[in-house]
Amino acid sequence: MENLQDIKCAACQGGASLVTQEEITQFMPNLAEWNIKQVFEINRLERTYYFKDFKEALAFTQRVGDLAEQANHHPAILTEWGRVTVSWWTHKIKGLHINDFVMALQTDNLLQGALQ
Amino acid sequence: MENLQDIKCAACQGGASLVTQEEITQFMPNLAEWNIKQVFEINRLERTYYFKDFKEALAFTQRVGDLAEQANHHPAILTEWGRVTVSWWTHKIKGLHINDFVMALQTDNLLQGALQ
Repeated sequence: MENLQDIKCAACQGGASLVTQEEITQFMPNLAEWNIKQVFEINRLERTYYFKDFKEALAFTQRVGDLAEQANHHPAILTEWGRVTVSWWTHKIKGLHINDFVMALQTDNLLQGALQ
Repeated sequence: MENLQDIKCAACQGGASLVTQEEITQFMPNLAEWNIKQVFEINRLERTYYFKDFKEALAFTQRVGDLAEQANHHPAILTEWGRVTVSWWTHKIKGLHINDFVMALQTDNLLQGALQ
C-alpha cells in the first residue's frame, strides 16, 4: 500500500471504490486533527482550523479553494469568524475515496504561514 | 419605522435588542429568498445562492467576506460546488438584530454581475 503523501489526487469516476477500513486505519495517523463525520448517511473527512480573526480565516478559505480548483476536487468550506471547517468527500461514490485523504493532507500543507 | 435600505449596519452591543416580530414582518418582504432558521436554538437569517461552478461560488464568498469586513459584522459562509449559503445572526445577543436584516439586503446587492 502506498503512503498518503506519495499519492496524487486523480479525478474520481463513479465506479471508483470507497476506501477500505484497512486504508482508513493506515491513513488516519497522518491526519490526526481530522475526524470522519457522517452527514446525511455519507462519511466526510472534517477538520476545523482556527485563526485570529475573520480576515485570516477568509484568506485560508481562498487557499483551500485554489487547491480544490487545481485538483478539480471540491470540498465544503465553512468560513466563520476565526475558523474554517473543511469537509472532503466524494459525491459520485457517496463517501470517502482515497483522494479525499490525499486532499486532507494537502489542506494541512497549506497551513504553513497561515496559522497564528 | 425606517425602511431596511435606509438603515446602516452599526456595530452591535451586547445590550442591543433582538428584532421584534413587527420588524420581522416588515423586513421579510424585502428578503424573499431568505429564511429564518434555528441553529442550536439561535435564529439565523439564511440564504443559498447558486452559481455555475466552484470558482464563481468562491468568488462570491470573497465578496461577502469583504462586505463583512467593511461592516465589522461577520456571517457564516458555506462554500460548495456551485453554491454559497450565507447565514447572518448576532452572536452577542444570540439571535437576530436589525443589523442582520440590513446585511442580508446588502448581500443580495452584491449579486449584480455575480449570478449566472
